[in-house]
Amino acid sequence: VRAGRLEAFSDGVIAIAATLLVIELAVPPAGEDVWHALREELPAVAAFAVSFLTILIFWVNHHALYHAVEGVNRAMLFINGLLLLAISFVSYCTAVLGHALQTGEHDRSAAVLYALVLGLCSTCFTALWICLRARPGLLTEQARPRVYAALRRSLAGPTIYLVAILVGLLNAPASLALDAVVALYFALVPRHLRKPALPPTGAGPR
Amino acid sequence: VRAGRLEAFSDGVIAIAATLLVIELAVPPAGEDVWHALREELPAVAAFAVSFLTILIFWVNHHALYHAVEGVNRAMLFINGLLLLAISFVSYCTAVLGHALQTGEHDRSAAVLYALVLGLCSTCFTALWICLRARPGLLTEQARPRVYAALRRSLAGPTIYLVAILVGLLNAPASLALDAVVALYFALVPRHLRKPALPPTGAGPR
Amino acid sequence: VRAGRLEAFSDGVIAIAATLLVIELAVPPAGEDVWHALREELPAVAAFAVSFLTILIFWVNHHALYHAVEGVNRAMLFINGLLLLAISFVSYCTAVLGHALQTGEHDRSAAVLYALVLGLCSTCFTALWICLRARPGLLTEQARPRVYAALRRSLAGPTIYLVAILVGLLNAPASLALDAVVALYFALVPRHLRKPALPPTGAGPR
Amino acid sequence: VRAGRLEAFSDGVIAIAATLLVIELAVPPAGEDVWHALREELPAVAAFAVSFLTILIFWVNHHALYHAVEGVNRAMLFINGLLLLAISFVSYCTAVLGHALQTGEHDRSAAVLYALVLGLCSTCFTALWICLRARPGLLTEQARPRVYAALRRSLAGPTIYLVAILVGLLNAPASLALDAVVALYFALVPRHLRKPALPPTGAGPR
Repeated sequence: VRAGRLEAFSDGVIAIAATLLVIELAVPPAGEDVWHALREELPAVAAFAVSFLTILIFWVNHHALYHAVEGVNRAMLFINGLLLLAISFVSYCTAVLGHALQTGEHDRSAAVLYALVLGLCSTCFTALWICLRARPGLLTEQARPRVYAALRRSLAGPTIYLVAILVGLLNAPASLALDAVVALYFALVPRHLRKPALPPTGAGPR
Repeated sequence: VRAGRLEAFSDGVIAIAATLLVIELAVPPAGEDVWHALREELPAVAAFAVSFLTILIFWVNHHALYHAVEGVNRAMLFINGLLLLAISFVSYCTAVLGHALQTGEHDRSAAVLYALVLGLCSTCFTALWICLRARPGLLTEQARPRVYAALRRSLAGPTIYLVAILVGLLNAPASLALDAVVALYFALVPRHLRKPALPPTGAGPR
Repeated sequence: VRAGRLEAFSDGVIAIAATLLVIELAVPPAGEDVWHALREELPAVAAFAVSFLTILIFWVNHHALYHAVEGVNRAMLFINGLLLLAISFVSYCTAVLGHALQTGEHDRSAAVLYALVLGLCSTCFTALWICLRARPGLLTEQARPRVYAALRRSLAGPTIYLVAILVGLLNAPASLALDAVVALYFALVPRHLRKPALPPTGAGPR
Repeated sequence: VRAGRLEAFSDGVIAIAATLLVIELAVPPAGEDVWHALREELPAVAAFAVSFLTILIFWVNHHALYHAVEGVNRAMLFINGLLLLAISFVSYCTAVLGHALQTGEHDRSAAVLYALVLGLCSTCFTALWICLRARPGLLTEQARPRVYAALRRSLAGPTIYLVAILVGLLNAPASLALDAVVALYFALVPRHLRKPALPPTGAGPR
């Protein structure tokens, strides 16, 4: 499988998974006050927003990874498939968490399940970098010296999600807040992943 | 993140958000007269059409913006993510507005929410142009002299949506009509955003 | 708007519209006999299949049209938007028709609505060819001499759908059969729309 | 139709079909224990996972096929359309099978239907290779000597799904397990389908 094609297909799945999230938000029944319904649904909307931004960050990381890659082997193809399966399952977990946060019933179990699935996605990324570490021939020449740094950086995901699972056993909103922290952490794209064609002048990106 | 890839991914999310709108339209229960049901659902169909065309216009503007861009910085990546989040939320607001217009209950609140979310999308576009104004190095050379004009033009969106919010406090259908005006305004793509490769002969596009 | 980008975006909307059709098919409730349920739903499945294949054919024609095009003007952009709106509305009409055919109630109204929406799509294609006839500068050089033939051929769509609307006033299944005829007609892609790079030897496509 | 464009469109439909699967999983009603609900839904989740991975494998095979192709003829275009129709129908069958496995009622009929639809997809692949066998001019030069091997290999799909249909008459979970075997079989991509640009050194993929 050509890496470019695999990336395009994965992009499609990730974009759809992000956009489908919204259909799990229950539209308030006709006749109900809109602001009241929204306030009631605020926890579900928060879970929706965290999931959406997390999936966007997954996309950014996925793109950065395949930008550094020239080919994929069978193990990577398999892990990539598992990653897409897990990402497509996020909408289910988001709906479960949203409902649970709204009613306050079984919300800790829902938070654990949610962090578990995000953690699985995150672990797939780390596994992909481990594959690339083991077979640097799959990387572009420029990317080879940076594979260690990328692998180390990717470990932040599984680590924080593990904490989020443990916190979820005690408190659901705190666990969701931790999940949001991962998205924020990875939103801070390190310098070396930015567009290289830009001139290093003051007019370029910070 | 390469601008081309970000554009392709955003295109995917925008295309899905537009196409998903239709699944919020309630299919009339079996046995009901089709034309009667459609007439009853006309306000929801109108909201659907306005949302669909508005999202198409968002796409046209998104495309025009990235056509002028050579790279994106972190701020733009973040604003783009917020824009996609808001666009994917449009289907929810469309369903709420559709229901409210049909029953006539709480329809003004729904119209305010609807214009608020469209206004948020619109403000993201203006924010992207402000980023580009501040860092012209991110623009292609041809686009740099036109960044002022584009930024000024993009202000029409937040402005009209703000009026639509205020009108929505009084009358929901009038507010929706104003939302449609924004789509019409931006549908009038200015000359300089058209395909440059076409010869400037009489046979070219008007 | 660059024609290639518009085509890619339209492809996305068309692919999603086709794939979303299936979620309007009602999954039989647990405990019901699967074959019995499928037999009961056969009219809905038939409507689903006709819609799916019709949208695929729309894609083929859309692709053939944009293959012949170098640029689009504002009128074409607008008609293309209307076409996408109509295509995304097909799933709604398919669900309405499927329900009506299953129960036999109001099925003629549903068939008229269905043929009306497909006819609108079809008319958009004709309108696009009329735009190109009026401004041959938008066409590639090879495509210019063939614009008449393409426009004439595209008229088959609105014509047969008009007949399907009239037939739908009398008999719903016959109208659906006529809709299927349009798909079959356009499935017979004329020779000149095939891949030109292939050598004209006996080993090439028939 | 250019083969590249057909592939991109098919990719879109396949990606959406895979990602839509999840919305057929019933989110447990608020107030129910999350782990208990998941355990109850385990058969449906298993069917979801098998469908998702099977569709991913379909994509890999679809990509490998079009990688070997230079053009498509009308017969291939038609078979490709049928393949997409069948793939988009998988989510319906997955939901039916999931429900039936959960309740244990009519589960064998559901397993037969499921294997039937997957078998139809698989047969379309074989039919595409038969088309290419008959018209080697459609293949790239490098792919021509391998068309026999690819055709023979593709026969594994219809064969195992036929067995899965027969087994489904007796036992539903065993039939689903066999369906999973097909995915595993094709996951073992043969050597000649991997990225050719990679150097054949030890640093390359195994």
